[in-house]
Amino acid sequence: MFFASDNTGPAAPQVLEAVIAANQGYAMPYGNDPATHQVEARLREVFEAPDARVFLLSSGTAANALALATLTQPWQAILCHEAAHIQVSECNAPEFYTGGAKLLPVAGPDGRIDPDALATALGNLSDGKSPDTRRGPVSLTQVTDLGGVYSLSQIRAVTEVAKSFGCACHMDGARFANALVTLGCTPAEMTWKSGIDAVSFGGTKNGLIGAEAVIFFNPDHAYEFEHRRRRGGHLMSKQRYLAAQYLAYLTDDLWLDLAQKANTAAARLESVVTKIKGAKLLHARQANMIFAVWPRATHRRLLAAGAAYYVESGDPFSDDDPQDLLTARLVTNWATTNQHIEDFKANALVD
Amino acid sequence: MFFASDNTGPAAPQVLEAVIAANQGYAMPYGNDPATHQVEARLREVFEAPDARVFLLSSGTAANALALATLTQPWQAILCHEAAHIQVSECNAPEFYTGGAKLLPVAGPDGRIDPDALATALGNLSDGKSPDTRRGPVSLTQVTDLGGVYSLSQIRAVTEVAKSFGCACHMDGARFANALVTLGCTPAEMTWKSGIDAVSFGGTKNGLIGAEAVIFFNPDHAYEFEHRRRRGGHLMSKQRYLAAQYLAYLTDDLWLDLAQKANTAAARLESVVTKIKGAKLLHARQANMIFAVWPRATHRRLLAAGAAYYVESGDPFSDDDPQDLLTARLVTNWATTNQHIEDFKANALVD
Amino acid sequence: MFFASDNTGPAAPQVLEAVIAANQGYAMPYGNDPATHQVEARLREVFEAPDARVFLLSSGTAANALALATLTQPWQAILCHEAAHIQVSECNAPEFYTGGAKLLPVAGPDGRIDPDALATALGNLSDGKSPDTRRGPVSLTQVTDLGGVYSLSQIRAVTEVAKSFGCACHMDGARFANALVTLGCTPAEMTWKSGIDAVSFGGTKNGLIGAEAVIFFNPDHAYEFEHRRRRGGHLMSKQRYLAAQYLAYLTDDLWLDLAQKANTAAARLESVVTKIKGAKLLHARQANMIFAVWPRATHRRLLAAGAAYYVESGDPFSDDDPQDLLTARLVTNWATTNQHIEDFKANALVD
Amino acid sequence: MFFASDNTGPAAPQVLEAVIAANQGYAMPYGNDPATHQVEARLREVFEAPDARVFLLSSGTAANALALATLTQPWQAILCHEAAHIQVSECNAPEFYTGGAKLLPVAGPDGRIDPDALATALGNLSDGKSPDTRRGPVSLTQVTDLGGVYSLSQIRAVTEVAKSFGCACHMDGARFANALVTLGCTPAEMTWKSGIDAVSFGGTKNGLIGAEAVIFFNPDHAYEFEHRRRRGGHLMSKQRYLAAQYLAYLTDDLWLDLAQKANTAAARLESVVTKIKGAKLLHARQANMIFAVWPRATHRRLLAAGAAYYVESGDPFSDDDPQDLLTARLVTNWATTNQHIEDFKANALVD
Repeated sequence: MFFASDNTGPAAPQVLEAVIAANQGYAMPYGNDPATHQVEARLREVFEAPDARVFLLSSGTAANALALATLTQPWQAILCHEAAHIQVSECNAPEFYTGGAKLLPVAGPDGRIDPDALATALGNLSDGKSPDTRRGPVSLTQVTDLGGVYSLSQIRAVTEVAKSFGCACHMDGARFANALVTLGCTPAEMTWKSGIDAVSFGGTKNGLIGAEAVIFFNPDHAYEFEHRRRRGGHLMSKQRYLAAQYLAYLTDDLWLDLAQKANTAAARLESVVTKIKGAKLLHARQANMIFAVWPRATHRRLLAAGAAYYVESGDPFSDDDPQDLLTARLVTNWATTNQHIEDFKANALVD
Repeated sequence: MFFASDNTGPAAPQVLEAVIAANQGYAMPYGNDPATHQVEARLREVFEAPDARVFLLSSGTAANALALATLTQPWQAILCHEAAHIQVSECNAPEFYTGGAKLLPVAGPDGRIDPDALATALGNLSDGKSPDTRRGPVSLTQVTDLGGVYSLSQIRAVTEVAKSFGCACHMDGARFANALVTLGCTPAEMTWKSGIDAVSFGGTKNGLIGAEAVIFFNPDHAYEFEHRRRRGGHLMSKQRYLAAQYLAYLTDDLWLDLAQKANTAAARLESVVTKIKGAKLLHARQANMIFAVWPRATHRRLLAAGAAYYVESGDPFSDDDPQDLLTARLVTNWATTNQHIEDFKANALVD
Repeated sequence: MFFASDNTGPAAPQVLEAVIAANQGYAMPYGNDPATHQVEARLREVFEAPDARVFLLSSGTAANALALATLTQPWQAILCHEAAHIQVSECNAPEFYTGGAKLLPVAGPDGRIDPDALATALGNLSDGKSPDTRRGPVSLTQVTDLGGVYSLSQIRAVTEVAKSFGCACHMDGARFANALVTLGCTPAEMTWKSGIDAVSFGGTKNGLIGAEAVIFFNPDHAYEFEHRRRRGGHLMSKQRYLAAQYLAYLTDDLWLDLAQKANTAAARLESVVTKIKGAKLLHARQANMIFAVWPRATHRRLLAAGAAYYVESGDPFSDDDPQDLLTARLVTNWATTNQHIEDFKANALVD
Repeated sequence: MFFASDNTGPAAPQVLEAVIAANQGYAMPYGNDPATHQVEARLREVFEAPDARVFLLSSGTAANALALATLTQPWQAILCHEAAHIQVSECNAPEFYTGGAKLLPVAGPDGRIDPDALATALGNLSDGKSPDTRRGPVSLTQVTDLGGVYSLSQIRAVTEVAKSFGCACHMDGARFANALVTLGCTPAEMTWKSGIDAVSFGGTKNGLIGAEAVIFFNPDHAYEFEHRRRRGGHLMSKQRYLAAQYLAYLTDDLWLDLAQKANTAAARLESVVTKIKGAKLLHARQANMIFAVWPRATHRRLLAAGAAYYVESGDPFSDDDPQDLLTARLVTNWATTNQHIEDFKANALVD
């Protein structure tokens, strides 16, 4: 019953094997090794972007913060959803890496930026006549932080507003593969063909030990990333072990298979959740995350039985009314088994 | 008809005279001069705060940003009203000076932070179990950026919420004197007796050439301010000229007289505005700022006649409907004359 | 006997008068006033640089730090003399404003960067193959921090090395006028004609209340300065009072007259110093600063008699050998009188 | 013949096995997993420091920069050797993470800080009367960046100077184990018993995939590290894989065995180097690094034959005099074989 996050599960066996295989002989440090060059070429291929610049890192927060720092001037604002990971969960990493840019939260359903709200927010920013905060990049999260998935036309609706104000677009794709499997489109379609300039292409939440990629489709300022990565302490001396993970990830569509498994498990879990007495989905599941409410008493029983997930409102163990509806976030991953779901079901549906 | 801002008018003659008088002989630089020490003592007296630490600067943005940097860790959030100057008009100065803290905007009427909204925002922040953005100081603007004035009990309602979460409280008092005159209370009552830990005590908008003071009622971390001021380039080598301005300001209640003049002029201007055909105050005037709507056509006529003020929504000279209501911000200052108001009236009330 | 610094003296009367004259009527804030535009044009004229971008500030530290931040990427090094004000006396302002660039001190006589030492230091920096600290701008101080003046050919020797490595050149001209008077050349010759890309053109140490100008001869990235100035809190709301000072400064060669007075006084003072028993100039005076050693006992007598200057090595009042030679820094300014020098002489030459 | 760096070799098999073993089941993210708590306890034990605070990271640059940021205020200087990694090779990471502190390089033989030079440098810094750059921590590198090892009394000589000025002491122990093996002392003796307050205890250069530990012996401000790590993107979501590496490293003295192997190989390599015609060691080898000069022609032959090492002065393939002496840096690691050394010998000693 481990649904706390997709980063709590194990790495895929193929990834481990690749790391073991990489542990032979000598390789130059700091990304000057053949495996790193190979993964760069492979990512350009996967994204159908021969001119893209590719960088590997070991953390998603670093991927986002460094990508944004490369796209943002310190006197600009970064527009993102008010529930975005970069706004809520990264301890001001974007403000730190950009040298003090401002994050401006924008509303919208299911974690998706509302294009009209974005247009208003961008319209309110400086038009160039006064030296106030300037418009900067727009960052979308795909899968969103509330479990939603932008359709291609929803991405485009946001990027078109951004472009009309001259703003670059970044995608936080910590769960990129999960969204891609849902949409059934190509990586290119979900990014540069939809107006995305740079993407944090996540791996850690989808079966890697700890590896993320940042891809700049517009290579203009990408050279900055290398310097920012180095001084951020994110250029690994043994970069080959990150490369090995990514090469395995991109071989034989492993990344898509892992994401498909997670999404399928989430669908199965969703069908259990909807049967919990008093439960209500906050919106239909779109990838591998479920947000739903159900009574405190049921939370208490599940948690006491060992179910691991976040209760995002209120304390399930308080003395307040046992019928209060509290919100749960449930996340599946590639390794989620039927047994996990059956155990959850057994504890969730007793009343 | 100069109502663009209270920083567009001249300095008070007494202030100029004090600067001239200060221009005699030699004085040690960087605040080691007798006048600076004198003004420090005088401000402690005015604020009935014998242990307070006092610093003079030449800009209000620097006063706010340096005060907040002294109160904030880079991994914390600063809570402020969504219309606050520090959020809207300082080009990310607080993010810069704090080393990348996050500003979290809170809603509330007339530019005042709503205590309940503040409690919710603070409650949403990290409780110490995870390393996300932490709670940091709350910053109130008095007079607010929408022309409102917090009553003493309204200040206390905000600071009590802040204190209940262990957060320090900063007051951006760019228009401190204007608010004080409205409330008719003492400086101590409007600050430390109401839970304020540090105040930016403005002078520039109220008749000085360019001088602001920051006062820390809790001197614990105030020593940091000196280092931050120095490396921010805000410790003037000829600090005596700032001190001279403040000494004049605080002599014979000049600062209160100037603020009273500005407020009185605003009251007179308000009575004209309410007579404009189609006009509506956004809220009753409380100090020296008026926010009101009236038709585009009337704006156009006033501006064409030379009235200076900001139209904060829409373009008065566009081809859109002349009856559209556009928002004006009108600010008076100590030097506003009856003639200014009569001229405005003459152009405003013709139809 | 006030020789502590040229920022301890009064402002010139013409400057005060200009400030008084500026205190009439209304002017738009933040540099959108006619006087600011006028001084911008005037400075372009004085520097024979019609395309230059000009900015006024109230502090020399801010002028240097903001100019350097505009020329430097955070992953670069700024090369300067090991005694440079930006390295020694600004409390890490350049590191702060650049977002964490590195200052690399270079040796050289009399505060002048040695071109060969500069070439070595630049040669040691990254050649682009690894992501280590990169070469950034070179900053010269003119008058140097040890009282020296670069000749035009000495400036060119430094800027040529810098240019050969593709580095921009900044001049910290806190005492620009004093150096110019010494060299008898034009402002253009001492700056852009000698390879300088941006200059901090000081006024505060030469008779202003508190005003500095930054001039970019290469306007390419100068637009950044405006944003950096704003978020640094250095765009004054009443910029007209800075402009007034500069207009007076540049009228009828006031700036050159004031500097000439300071230099002449220094020459006179130098002739006294050389007569002190046991005294030795560290190098021949070149502008308005004198660095010399003489015995502790003589320092003690002078300081006890009220002479104000910095003793830069050792404690004149210690119990150590009264014949120990301690270094003095003496600085004259436009207001230094013969009486100051006669008083100094009377106390210095008694033995 | 792979002597480019100790980070170019493979990880130890025991480390790989531990990572594989860790890849079972679920573990809470961000360091809230049992393995992380286990390694924290183990490190306290190894360092005989029951109150120490321990943090794992994946990069040495991050370890140093975050440790220093926790010990340094932005207005302070960090004193280090002029050849220190933090000064030369981290692309201004310390300046970035500290929010703009200044690094002040100090001279000394073999990469060791000279205590007298340190005393002079600290003495030159502000004594608290003026707001210039303040004294901050001293950082030693052990093994030094020039291959030297501080003896315990040499460490103490440096830390005593630092303490006499009230400065904290940091040790960059990227090659901690190699130095420890040389000295034959305990980890406690080489750190807190010799005056070290915080250490970057390296693993990556000594057989790990990529893992470093930071240990604060004085836990006073260590809580800051957690926030700084998070916003720097250095708190891994799957921290258990770092913990697994460290647990293997500290089991059965693996870390000391690996270091001993590297040092022994270096001793063997040193005996070859000293036989190269015209070669001269820059100083006797002390751990696993050799710095020596020999003629360009011999470099050329070795490099052409596939030897991998850095030539730190001049271009071995230039047309300059083949007898010029160029400096080589040779680094061994745990996996260096006799064959590597024999191959090197075969190519080095032919003439």
